Amino acid sequence: MAMYIVSRRAAGGLTPLAAFRYATSLRAYSTSFREERDTFGPINVPSDKLWGAQTQRSLQNFDIGGERERMPEPIVRAFGVLKKCAAKVNMENGLDPTIGKAIMQAAQEVAEGKLNQHFPLVIWQTGSGTQSNMNANEVISNRAAEILGHQRGEKFVHPNDHVNRSQSSNDTFPTVMHIASAKEINSRLIPNLQTLHAALHSKSEEFKDIVKIGRTHTQDATPLTLGQEFSGYSTQVKYGIERVLRTLPRMYQLAQGGTAVGTGLNTKKGFDVKIAAAVAEETKLPFVTAENKFEALAAHDAVVETSGALNTVATSLMKIANDIRFLGSGPRCGLGELILPENEPGSSIMPGKVNPTQCEALTMVCARVMGNNVAITVGGSTGHFELNVFKPMIASGLLHSVRLLGDASASFEKNCVRGIQANRERISKFLNESLMLVTSLNHKVGYDNAAAVARTAHKEGSTLKEAALKLGMLSSEEFDTLVVPEKMIGPTD
Amino acid sequence: MAMYIVSRRAAGGLTPLAAFRYATSLRAYSTSFREERDTFGPINVPSDKLWGAQTQRSLQNFDIGGERERMPEPIVRAFGVLKKCAAKVNMENGLDPTIGKAIMQAAQEVAEGKLNQHFPLVIWQTGSGTQSNMNANEVISNRAAEILGHQRGEKFVHPNDHVNRSQSSNDTFPTVMHIASAKEINSRLIPNLQTLHAALHSKSEEFKDIVKIGRTHTQDATPLTLGQEFSGYSTQVKYGIERVLRTLPRMYQLAQGGTAVGTGLNTKKGFDVKIAAAVAEETKLPFVTAENKFEALAAHDAVVETSGALNTVATSLMKIANDIRFLGSGPRCGLGELILPENEPGSSIMPGKVNPTQCEALTMVCARVMGNNVAITVGGSTGHFELNVFKPMIASGLLHSVRLLGDASASFEKNCVRGIQANRERISKFLNESLMLVTSLNHKVGYDNAAAVARTAHKEGSTLKEAALKLGMLSSEEFDTLVVPEKMIGPTD
Amino acid sequence: MAMYIVSRRAAGGLTPLAAFRYATSLRAYSTSFREERDTFGPINVPSDKLWGAQTQRSLQNFDIGGERERMPEPIVRAFGVLKKCAAKVNMENGLDPTIGKAIMQAAQEVAEGKLNQHFPLVIWQTGSGTQSNMNANEVISNRAAEILGHQRGEKFVHPNDHVNRSQSSNDTFPTVMHIASAKEINSRLIPNLQTLHAALHSKSEEFKDIVKIGRTHTQDATPLTLGQEFSGYSTQVKYGIERVLRTLPRMYQLAQGGTAVGTGLNTKKGFDVKIAAAVAEETKLPFVTAENKFEALAAHDAVVETSGALNTVATSLMKIANDIRFLGSGPRCGLGELILPENEPGSSIMPGKVNPTQCEALTMVCARVMGNNVAITVGGSTGHFELNVFKPMIASGLLHSVRLLGDASASFEKNCVRGIQANRERISKFLNESLMLVTSLNHKVGYDNAAAVARTAHKEGSTLKEAALKLGMLSSEEFDTLVVPEKMIGPTD
Amino acid sequence: MAMYIVSRRAAGGLTPLAAFRYATSLRAYSTSFREERDTFGPINVPSDKLWGAQTQRSLQNFDIGGERERMPEPIVRAFGVLKKCAAKVNMENGLDPTIGKAIMQAAQEVAEGKLNQHFPLVIWQTGSGTQSNMNANEVISNRAAEILGHQRGEKFVHPNDHVNRSQSSNDTFPTVMHIASAKEINSRLIPNLQTLHAALHSKSEEFKDIVKIGRTHTQDATPLTLGQEFSGYSTQVKYGIERVLRTLPRMYQLAQGGTAVGTGLNTKKGFDVKIAAAVAEETKLPFVTAENKFEALAAHDAVVETSGALNTVATSLMKIANDIRFLGSGPRCGLGELILPENEPGSSIMPGKVNPTQCEALTMVCARVMGNNVAITVGGSTGHFELNVFKPMIASGLLHSVRLLGDASASFEKNCVRGIQANRERISKFLNESLMLVTSLNHKVGYDNAAAVARTAHKEGSTLKEAALKLGMLSSEEFDTLVVPEKMIGPTD
Repeated sequence: MAMYIVSRRAAGGLTPLAAFRYATSLRAYSTSFREERDTFGPINVPSDKLWGAQTQRSLQNFDIGGERERMPEPIVRAFGVLKKCAAKVNMENGLDPTIGKAIMQAAQEVAEGKLNQHFPLVIWQTGSGTQSNMNANEVISNRAAEILGHQRGEKFVHPNDHVNRSQSSNDTFPTVMHIASAKEINSRLIPNLQTLHAALHSKSEEFKDIVKIGRTHTQDATPLTLGQEFSGYSTQVKYGIERVLRTLPRMYQLAQGGTAVGTGLNTKKGFDVKIAAAVAEETKLPFVTAENKFEALAAHDAVVETSGALNTVATSLMKIANDIRFLGSGPRCGLGELILPENEPGSSIMPGKVNPTQCEALTMVCARVMGNNVAITVGGSTGHFELNVFKPMIASGLLHSVRLLGDASASFEKNCVRGIQANRERISKFLNESLMLVTSLNHKVGYDNAAAVARTAHKEGSTLKEAALKLGMLSSEEFDTLVVPEKMIGPTD
Repeated sequence: MAMYIVSRRAAGGLTPLAAFRYATSLRAYSTSFREERDTFGPINVPSDKLWGAQTQRSLQNFDIGGERERMPEPIVRAFGVLKKCAAKVNMENGLDPTIGKAIMQAAQEVAEGKLNQHFPLVIWQTGSGTQSNMNANEVISNRAAEILGHQRGEKFVHPNDHVNRSQSSNDTFPTVMHIASAKEINSRLIPNLQTLHAALHSKSEEFKDIVKIGRTHTQDATPLTLGQEFSGYSTQVKYGIERVLRTLPRMYQLAQGGTAVGTGLNTKKGFDVKIAAAVAEETKLPFVTAENKFEALAAHDAVVETSGALNTVATSLMKIANDIRFLGSGPRCGLGELILPENEPGSSIMPGKVNPTQCEALTMVCARVMGNNVAITVGGSTGHFELNVFKPMIASGLLHSVRLLGDASASFEKNCVRGIQANRERISKFLNESLMLVTSLNHKVGYDNAAAVARTAHKEGSTLKEAALKLGMLSSEEFDTLVVPEKMIGPTD
Repeated sequence: MAMYIVSRRAAGGLTPLAAFRYATSLRAYSTSFREERDTFGPINVPSDKLWGAQTQRSLQNFDIGGERERMPEPIVRAFGVLKKCAAKVNMENGLDPTIGKAIMQAAQEVAEGKLNQHFPLVIWQTGSGTQSNMNANEVISNRAAEILGHQRGEKFVHPNDHVNRSQSSNDTFPTVMHIASAKEINSRLIPNLQTLHAALHSKSEEFKDIVKIGRTHTQDATPLTLGQEFSGYSTQVKYGIERVLRTLPRMYQLAQGGTAVGTGLNTKKGFDVKIAAAVAEETKLPFVTAENKFEALAAHDAVVETSGALNTVATSLMKIANDIRFLGSGPRCGLGELILPENEPGSSIMPGKVNPTQCEALTMVCARVMGNNVAITVGGSTGHFELNVFKPMIASGLLHSVRLLGDASASFEKNCVRGIQANRERISKFLNESLMLVTSLNHKVGYDNAAAVARTAHKEGSTLKEAALKLGMLSSEEFDTLVVPEKMIGPTD
Repeated sequence: MAMYIVSRRAAGGLTPLAAFRYATSLRAYSTSFREERDTFGPINVPSDKLWGAQTQRSLQNFDIGGERERMPEPIVRAFGVLKKCAAKVNMENGLDPTIGKAIMQAAQEVAEGKLNQHFPLVIWQTGSGTQSNMNANEVISNRAAEILGHQRGEKFVHPNDHVNRSQSSNDTFPTVMHIASAKEINSRLIPNLQTLHAALHSKSEEFKDIVKIGRTHTQDATPLTLGQEFSGYSTQVKYGIERVLRTLPRMYQLAQGGTAVGTGLNTKKGFDVKIAAAVAEETKLPFVTAENKFEALAAHDAVVETSGALNTVATSLMKIANDIRFLGSGPRCGLGELILPENEPGSSIMPGKVNPTQCEALTMVCARVMGNNVAITVGGSTGHFELNVFKPMIASGLLHSVRLLGDASASFEKNCVRGIQANRERISKFLNESLMLVTSLNHKVGYDNAAAVARTAHKEGSTLKEAALKLGMLSSEEFDTLVVPEKMIGPTD
């Protein structure tokens, strides 16, 4: 391993400012370097890092966005899964088992997140994700070489010829996009949406006897139960889960085996089916090989489709969180029908103020998911010929939406929905004051007469009953028989 | 029927300019008026129109966008279907059969588009679509009254008590949204996508033996057949059809029976199931009653979901049309691998120019569909309490996307895809010049050596073979055996 | 002029269904035809129409979307303006004055909207708008020929050589996009936003003494005046006007003179400057020639920019309309601080219900404008080389946004804002009950103690004063001196 | 300072899994704790952190998105600037100078990024950013206390009464949004766009004599110079800079002084003007106090507006990067007119492949910026009453777009544009083969005859000259005089 001083070689060819920045960025990692090579020649790499030449070039050529913009961890882990499975199938097809097993062991470490610090590249690199694929190949080959007692940079295990054998970035990156997305959706998003659904459903049961005023157009309308209102929310979430799940059959199709342009050049027949099976076994998810590899490389419609389902979930959650904050508005000058959990002080100037902060976090997440959907759509529509080159942006966008919706649903459930209480007193007050109970007179006196009653009461500030009697529409007894909110919450027999 | 001169009464209370505009707008329709009434009092309506007071008020209060912005015809027709079915079920529940049958007859005329000119309202009205529901109620009640020998405006058949019986705008409008969308998707979009799919699939068969250069990152890559390239397109469209169809189960759920807030107030038990069955029978589509009416009124997630699928289809078609125009670019200074049908002169200044105009129309449509998806998402996320009041915008947005994608797919298939020819000479020329055939040397000489061959050929402008021989990598015979494009289009045995 | 029966020639070469549709579509226009020619050969055109061969081909090749999708009228009129100016400048450069004057007269008729029925083409055509440019050239040439006593189709005045002289679709269409947009913005949008601003400002004056509770996070907050609240709205609209106007300098740049690719081939030097001056004179708007014609043809950043400003206006109006409907919610179970004008019955089932329908129409418009902005952005970003070919979609999207925002602002002002009244009784009730008046105790007792007062009052349902006294924070007199809502609506001296 | 073991108290009340996660997350920070208090009571905080109770509550209540989602550093630094200025003005208004100066010193450390590790909160918190404001208040108060020799948690310097004096989150957060955005735009985005503009402009000069074929509709068109083509790009960037700068006047308006709802309660008159002046001095940017504080808290139209300008810049850069990759496509089977710098190996399977990776990174960034614009728009439109509560999402979205566009522009300039070379040989070959040179015959033979020449050459694969002579349109000499590409790149005299 050759070691150099930064000032001597590492920053060669850079402008003074860039060299300074580069040196500074490296300093965070290391003070010594080894030489790695690729087809472009030698380049210095921090000694304590497993990555190789191509990763290093990307680091230097794509100084965009800073560390927060690194390739999402689920992608890195999915590379571990994939490379492990590839080595396994490659051994069946002739890869030296010593090397194959070392690759599997190194890849497993990547899959477990143990080598995360060796994946420094940002999303904003080549649009095929080639550099992250090479990052995985380089890290795994160096780590595998170490396992076998060789030095980093020696290429005893070769990143391309061994680790990337039978593969191309063009099929590995779509594959890890699907593995990472499907795993995150199944392990993070769906369970959290299910918990949220259960909590909303439970509230709809808890509130099933509380009759309250309905509101349409933000205006008073006919009554319903608070339980019915929450049943709408829980149905939205239930369908949201269904919507996401319905898109997964296409996400479970893996591009692997298509190699460079979808033809499968440089693979053995059957490689695609075998590797999909291996990934399925490894992840316990029903992955299969993609029916058409050309589509699987050149387009990411499957991701756009799933993002569309997430966008719909965001639409639902935006509506639910908005309703809950308005129903919980007050404490004295709002609707105040719900009492939301108080989790923290709400204002730095207004003492005692408590705010629907979980609703706010969730609705912000929803707006972000809607934006992600547009970014993914634009990227998804702009592929050219045999390859879509917006892959890292598309993948990170979807994973961002999945993560945020999953986490925010959990937070919303735990810190808000679970603790919602009904303010029965206020609900009852509103119900009794409402004019829209008049709707139950339609059958008896007709729409036009009922309207006259409501308008009279509205103008005079009187009750419906007072107005009905004044207009001589019906007797006091008739009114009391007809206008019973509890009878207005469903069809009649 | 009272008749008036415009200047005397019709424009009362308007500013001079508004009165002038109003008079002008009416002039298109009529010069005589009759009086109609609603709960707000009397109002003049053109004598030759079937609509009533509430339609007239909307016309005057929502002068937004002009005639192009009228409620889409599929919505109007769906109102006809729904009102016919409602009368049928209402008769089972006690509606006078004389009136019921007249309503059914009048509604059938609406369903057939015969009364379109009596539906003048624009999308930009109340967000519940109440005014269009009332437009339907008024037109049908007046027409039914006429059928029974009564005068318009007499309310012998009452718009609310008879035509709208057991209904509310809040459940009828979501219902017609779903009826109209499902019908248009099934009758217009899906068949046209299927035709497009068939044409692309047929081309992929036709071109299955034409080996051509692949392109990734817009750069030369390993070869594939032109048929394989088109198979990617046909797969995209095939999945697009599947994507749209998978969303329909939720579109087939009808809100009808929820009435004002979802409770079903003012309906008989079972009304919801019966009317869904009646609509299903009438339309031959598998409509069912919505599992949860609160969700069905307060949210339009089903439309957002379907719009997401359309957005994905737009993404696919944008990619396909873009590829086709680039592959057909030229005639002499582009890629020129495809020869596109020449349908019309392309330039007003450049004689003899022919352009990929069908690709252009289609990609413009795709951009518009992406925009519609955002509008629908925003509208879908902003419902409050028991009612989403972005209904007409959401409905018209979806129907717009469905119509445009359907029509443009048909036009693209008929006027472009069907007539595409391969320029075999040019395809062959590119293939033989390409450097990426070097990939087939990987197994023999390793990635790094193969790269050296390619780079040498690139720098010296020589052929791969010349470079390989010069670098002494392998013999002429070995090269010829290994580098055979026709063997590079699939996995090896 | 040759006349034919549809069944004999017009539909030749079409499939039976297409022929039927085609015949049906023509039937709406005409039953006799004349022959027109272009470089593709002869084609039948309805005798009573002024358009020629290229328009007819577009009609037949782009059956997308139906009549509502026709090129917007402002574009057609702008073509009239432009062609008139072009003839004028061309005469200076040698165009035969007889022909030139006839062109000017015919173009003037187009500019006045008199020949609208001769512009049947839809937006979804070639992406350069060439077909609409040729539509204008054909209509004007035939009309000019008629003026000079010649027959339609004779090409006595030639659509390309005379009417389109010194022009290309590639510069005319961007030019009419800018002319139409700038005119509509100046004549329709800005005045209506100004009227809306004036109305909101007037309300902020009218309500300047009404102290009310503030609401942040939808929760009760410290007080402000209703006038202050409306001043926020009026400021939003004021800035919105400024935002739109600030984008116009780039919209006032005209592409005309760039011809086919921006070079100005086939124009005389100075043509670009002269025609911009002529258009400026004709429209009374400060148009100038574009600084760089390559940019002006290949991109429509100016439209994307203006659309971004309209998107911001939509954001503002969405906020304002939402606030107004919530502040006007009720009448008994909402916030009810505002009384909104009652314009029409609100419900088909709930008698007497009145809804904030103008807010609903406006917010739907805002969602649509946001969607249009995305469509325009996608189209604007996808130009290739010397020409963006999403022109008709981009243009129609912007004009749609301008029209809808303009009309909806006017409707909202006239039918809602102007008539808003404050419900002083309810405002006063809320104000006095609020706990957030506690904020004025911060200086006296500190944030933590003030919070304790608020929390005590909240928990015990007592007044702030009761809580403050109970906790012994301060005396009754001190409380009354400090907690005065009217003193809480501004900084202290 | 009380110290505890995690297992004993810190995770009390959490589910086992949550407790585990919580403990794990804390482990990264600390193993000992001190007690801090707010109006909700005591809570444990890691001993080595400066934050207090409210920050800690937010950490525990908003476990959304992970560390990458932390409040952007420019926001944290802007809080430092603001709190320093506030202390300065507060001292003028009576704040104890000892405390005031310590606050200024601590705030300066925040402004310099020295205390970044004490700002752990994520974007997905309360929508007012209150928790981040309190994070700043708590860190600065503890740090100031330390400076003065006091303990953390003692509140010798009080986070609300001292650090947040005369402020509310509701005005500080909008203020830091504007400070951070304006600083980042001025220091990062604009300079990088200027550098990119200069590079493109320089290329347009360098290439000013290279005549090449134009392309419209992706089809061959009349010629222009490569310099003219690049002048279009440089103009787009130039206008982009102008677009962003034109939005800044509204970004320079600061909300500070509005406090809780915009009224300025708890400030002294003139505080708003003074603090804006102090910020302006501190940042050297022309900040002023917002004309209307109600608008400044309740809406973020200024951010939406600037985002619209960034969206337009993204549109421009997408177009430019797309063109450059297509013009550089090849090396042998593409257009190949440009030679792009080769920065790294392009493929893990295709040896020797080099890709336009900088174009890819940039176009991915552009798609992301378009998505951010939608997220910002949705958030911006959904404010309620006196406060928009999508603030952190809006702010982070804009800062994300600014950072990515700035960095990617720099990377694109440095690693791509700067090194672009023209492939003169290929450009010349295309030019001479093109049929669109025929356009220069229009004046001589008329459009229809010129079209015949082009069509003949196209069909017969001959040159234009051969076709022209064959059709007898003009003599060989005439042709040579008229068809001179070098004369076709501008207007004639």
